[in-house]
Amino acid sequence: MRKLKLSLAAAGFAALPGLALAQDTAAAAPDINPYIFTTLLFLIGGFLVFWMAAGFAMLEAGLVRSKNVTMQLTKNIALFSIAAIMYWLIGFNLMYPGDWVISGVMGPWFSVTSLEPVGLGAADASLDYASVGSDFFFQLMFCATTASIVSGTLAERIKLWPFLIFVAILTGIIYPIEASWQWGGGFLSEMGFSDFAGSTLVHAAGGFAALAGALILGPRIGKYKDGKTIPMPGSNLALATLGTFILWLGWFGFNGGSQLAMGTVGDVTDVSRIFANTNMAAAAGAVTALLLTQVMFKKPDLTMTLNGALAGLVSITAGPLDPSLFGALWIGAVGGVIVVFVVPMLDKLKIDDVVGAIPVHLVAGFWGTFAVPFYTEGTSFVTQIIGFVAIGAFTFVVSGIVWLILKATMGIRVSEEDEINGLDMSELGMEAYPEFKAG
Amino acid sequence: MRKLKLSLAAAGFAALPGLALAQDTAAAAPDINPYIFTTLLFLIGGFLVFWMAAGFAMLEAGLVRSKNVTMQLTKNIALFSIAAIMYWLIGFNLMYPGDWVISGVMGPWFSVTSLEPVGLGAADASLDYASVGSDFFFQLMFCATTASIVSGTLAERIKLWPFLIFVAILTGIIYPIEASWQWGGGFLSEMGFSDFAGSTLVHAAGGFAALAGALILGPRIGKYKDGKTIPMPGSNLALATLGTFILWLGWFGFNGGSQLAMGTVGDVTDVSRIFANTNMAAAAGAVTALLLTQVMFKKPDLTMTLNGALAGLVSITAGPLDPSLFGALWIGAVGGVIVVFVVPMLDKLKIDDVVGAIPVHLVAGFWGTFAVPFYTEGTSFVTQIIGFVAIGAFTFVVSGIVWLILKATMGIRVSEEDEINGLDMSELGMEAYPEFKAG
Amino acid sequence: MRKLKLSLAAAGFAALPGLALAQDTAAAAPDINPYIFTTLLFLIGGFLVFWMAAGFAMLEAGLVRSKNVTMQLTKNIALFSIAAIMYWLIGFNLMYPGDWVISGVMGPWFSVTSLEPVGLGAADASLDYASVGSDFFFQLMFCATTASIVSGTLAERIKLWPFLIFVAILTGIIYPIEASWQWGGGFLSEMGFSDFAGSTLVHAAGGFAALAGALILGPRIGKYKDGKTIPMPGSNLALATLGTFILWLGWFGFNGGSQLAMGTVGDVTDVSRIFANTNMAAAAGAVTALLLTQVMFKKPDLTMTLNGALAGLVSITAGPLDPSLFGALWIGAVGGVIVVFVVPMLDKLKIDDVVGAIPVHLVAGFWGTFAVPFYTEGTSFVTQIIGFVAIGAFTFVVSGIVWLILKATMGIRVSEEDEINGLDMSELGMEAYPEFKAG
Repeated sequence: MRKLKLSLAAAGFAALPGLALAQDTAAAAPDINPYIFTTLLFLIGGFLVFWMAAGFAMLEAGLVRSKNVTMQLTKNIALFSIAAIMYWLIGFNLMYPGDWVISGVMGPWFSVTSLEPVGLGAADASLDYASVGSDFFFQLMFCATTASIVSGTLAERIKLWPFLIFVAILTGIIYPIEASWQWGGGFLSEMGFSDFAGSTLVHAAGGFAALAGALILGPRIGKYKDGKTIPMPGSNLALATLGTFILWLGWFGFNGGSQLAMGTVGDVTDVSRIFANTNMAAAAGAVTALLLTQVMFKKPDLTMTLNGALAGLVSITAGPLDPSLFGALWIGAVGGVIVVFVVPMLDKLKIDDVVGAIPVHLVAGFWGTFAVPFYTEGTSFVTQIIGFVAIGAFTFVVSGIVWLILKATMGIRVSEEDEINGLDMSELGMEAYPEFKAG
Repeated sequence: MRKLKLSLAAAGFAALPGLALAQDTAAAAPDINPYIFTTLLFLIGGFLVFWMAAGFAMLEAGLVRSKNVTMQLTKNIALFSIAAIMYWLIGFNLMYPGDWVISGVMGPWFSVTSLEPVGLGAADASLDYASVGSDFFFQLMFCATTASIVSGTLAERIKLWPFLIFVAILTGIIYPIEASWQWGGGFLSEMGFSDFAGSTLVHAAGGFAALAGALILGPRIGKYKDGKTIPMPGSNLALATLGTFILWLGWFGFNGGSQLAMGTVGDVTDVSRIFANTNMAAAAGAVTALLLTQVMFKKPDLTMTLNGALAGLVSITAGPLDPSLFGALWIGAVGGVIVVFVVPMLDKLKIDDVVGAIPVHLVAGFWGTFAVPFYTEGTSFVTQIIGFVAIGAFTFVVSGIVWLILKATMGIRVSEEDEINGLDMSELGMEAYPEFKAG
Repeated sequence: MRKLKLSLAAAGFAALPGLALAQDTAAAAPDINPYIFTTLLFLIGGFLVFWMAAGFAMLEAGLVRSKNVTMQLTKNIALFSIAAIMYWLIGFNLMYPGDWVISGVMGPWFSVTSLEPVGLGAADASLDYASVGSDFFFQLMFCATTASIVSGTLAERIKLWPFLIFVAILTGIIYPIEASWQWGGGFLSEMGFSDFAGSTLVHAAGGFAALAGALILGPRIGKYKDGKTIPMPGSNLALATLGTFILWLGWFGFNGGSQLAMGTVGDVTDVSRIFANTNMAAAAGAVTALLLTQVMFKKPDLTMTLNGALAGLVSITAGPLDPSLFGALWIGAVGGVIVVFVVPMLDKLKIDDVVGAIPVHLVAGFWGTFAVPFYTEGTSFVTQIIGFVAIGAFTFVVSGIVWLILKATMGIRVSEEDEINGLDMSELGMEAYPEFKAG
């Protein structure tokens, strides 16, 4: 659904300022309101998706043990910051190769993002789209989200710096390349693949990068013993719940902003549909996981319920516009089912995913992508699978190679002693809750 | 103040598309900007009120003891999710009976919400209002707020599932019926009752549902002993403060969005007044409670101050537009006074309200409703009292019946042993802060 | 950059309603959309900056020791509330003396804020600006931010009431006077001083008020012993990180809203630039502090990284529009450097700044102000320094006098015993985390 930025059109405008200025009646002036509305959509959507970075930080800080909380917080603020720099330096223009004309070409593979001049005139603007600044701001947040997904899975055992190097590569190169296949006008968009706001491009991609890391990194010490999975409960479920609410809120921007337009009756009404559907899918995922854990385990499980909401959100992300509210409900509910079944399945495979990011983002991301043709005309289940596999394979293989290189060169895992003592004291020398005794 | 949705007009538009399309000059095209602005108001207002669900979760998680935090978090995410589903399934159309024509009539009492088609044309839109999707999204959040109010009062002793069943009935049936009396064009709106954003319809109604529950459920074990009230301090005042700030933020959407229009100079200026007044009332409530607790108890009380801010917000909610800033100040300040006096009064009556929701939402809700005629022409104190009593009596009685049925059938209270051990371990098997020793 | 509110123009409009109404063609009706867009910018910007009050509360609650958390939360909610009242009572009109005509003149030094009437007609509005209500709402949040900065520095030892009295004077008088020198059309704006969103007017001013207080109050007991600085680690780094993310989010409103217009292509595109630059500066500050603490101390430091992000934000605040993204990057990075070097420097001077507010807000505020001429034409380094010194000297001296008077009259510091026991029990009788044992 996401299209090329229309900056070539803008360049066209720019080349003909005289024409625009030659218009001499007010009635002939172009209507600038759609441009303002869409730019505003990106700014609001962008700050909401920014807020998701805080959501991931709180969710993960709440789900790790207290001895690793400072490290998890450090990783989260650092990964967002690195994503912001890498996406500016390489990612944005790598993702939209057709647009380089306005950014100053530095060669076919590398060009730094630059914005419009201050005080842009209407004649020089992409009046049928939005400002480049707002578009960059909005797109950047999606790139950073991909990295946020990885940090949770690999928590409590990965070293800080190799993780951050991976983030730089993921946000500067891997994500922009795979996302360009669809949103940059690449072969997947040509094929008819459909991923409205990124169930595959963002969520599953993040999940595949995390999966590659988890396999190479191995599980936490003591997690799997004598064929059993040892629970390692999160240290602060209030933070985890707060993180989930933050993510839910941010998702309105994530999906709603991906309409990429708000200046017509149809567009703003579509954004409304997306908000309502997004909310419904989250609610359905949460309720489903709550009910299912009651039925299966006799005790409702809060962390499953939180992840159920998130899986509902991921599930609707590939197609938040076309389904009815009932469609959003059952698509989201399946997301909740996925969480409850896939979390223990991963444990059986001894894949240690600290926060459940792989079920939520990768598996529900597949489900959401696959489900698009139920409601969106002109899409096909086969193409959806092809797109998912292409992006998954690419992200998994390239991420795996990067992880292996990092492992071979600087090592990616802390020492056994440091892991047992906690990363906070061993790597950072700083506890998150220094005054509260561990029980 | 809230009116019927104008979907009948939309249906009229839809019946005459040819007419609209027959217009052949640009000048004759309808101005779509008001529609976009108002829809945007609902989307922004809606996500801000959504955020209040997180605020209630944090406030309540901070004010219960640590052994009940996981349960309180579970209730909060579940109640919002259930409200989202019930309001879609029954509530929205039950609340606006005159609008069923667009939703597909399923009979006079039951009809599922459906939204406009994707890519709505301007000729088919309620150009004098906003998209149905945004309206539904916004209204849903008010319905959920009503349920959020109940969970705090009944914390630390009510079973999960009966509580959630009550929430389903409250959000699917009770709230939509009483709210329809005013916002659905019912008899209270005919009478001239005035409740701009819901001091009575949302806050007092939630408070009455909570009060009925508290009376039937009884106080926590050990709360009242030998004529004394035993303090049971909240486990995390940082979370409680965070929750209050979140609610304060969300309230700008709650009250501001209730202007229901943003496409004219008058409307957007009114929304501005509402933001400024809402902020002032909250500030005045907080300062008043702070000063009063200093004077009365010699020590300023943070939880009273937080509840003072919230009571200020509830107080201004019935009429946030018409008062001057000074009016908002004194109306909010009275809210702060109410908190300081009513909290101990309830304890004397042995009504155990864990977070103070009854003083904040019911009593300050009455005050706010009563105070409307001080600033709003054409309203009367008598009518305000009648409206409050009508909604209060209905909500209290019906809620009481539901609570009694739940008590008689499945039981609503956990066992004495479970209550003493905490609901987290007994009902959920999961602690919120498993590593931190209780003092 | 911030100009006089255009209410005189509005008064002019108001005087000639007949003229406006005499227009008889639709084409001649004034375009109200810019007014709506700019008003909306203030409302959105305003609620984002409001949210910063919660950010400061969480940051500070996380960085003090657990025995002072309730007090820090109390101070934060109280200071915001007091600022809201004082800015209404005195501050707003004191800051914009040229605008008193619409507020009802009460003399040259004192006039209460009043808003437009309900249902303002287009003919009576400042169509080239925005509603007074939205402007007041937005400006108020800046005033409150100034006070938030002070509370962190002075934490853990200052008494509640003298602190709040200082806040009332700061927000009612000191801030409005110094801010009027620039934003109220005073001598600094005449001189060509440039401070787009307030690196000096808000952040450095708050920092100077804090510095004066810190010098007069003295360091915490035991902080400096035998020439050494004793670390007093914050009790909850998750909250501190949450606070930083909240501030970062709020800053989009702080800087973006300070464009003061959103109704043209140029303005909304400029707001987009500001969002992107603000984000970049924060990211660069965080990464720089992270790298620098790794290099200098061999261990990355989370609190330095958080303060690095904040210093990056403060640094870009004086000129968030004109720099390129690369400009924002290096300006923000210098902010990160400042934090890492100035925090220990203050400790050497035995100035005890509990949360690092002086490095972040005062020193990075100077840097941001000084850096404006690198990118903004028509500004000079000399004028920037003069403006900074003028505001710094005024705020420091007047704040110092107020602190000294408070010290001489009611005392500003708690007793030694109370400080050692913590302010929560001694001044408030209420612990923030009563169930968690201190280690």
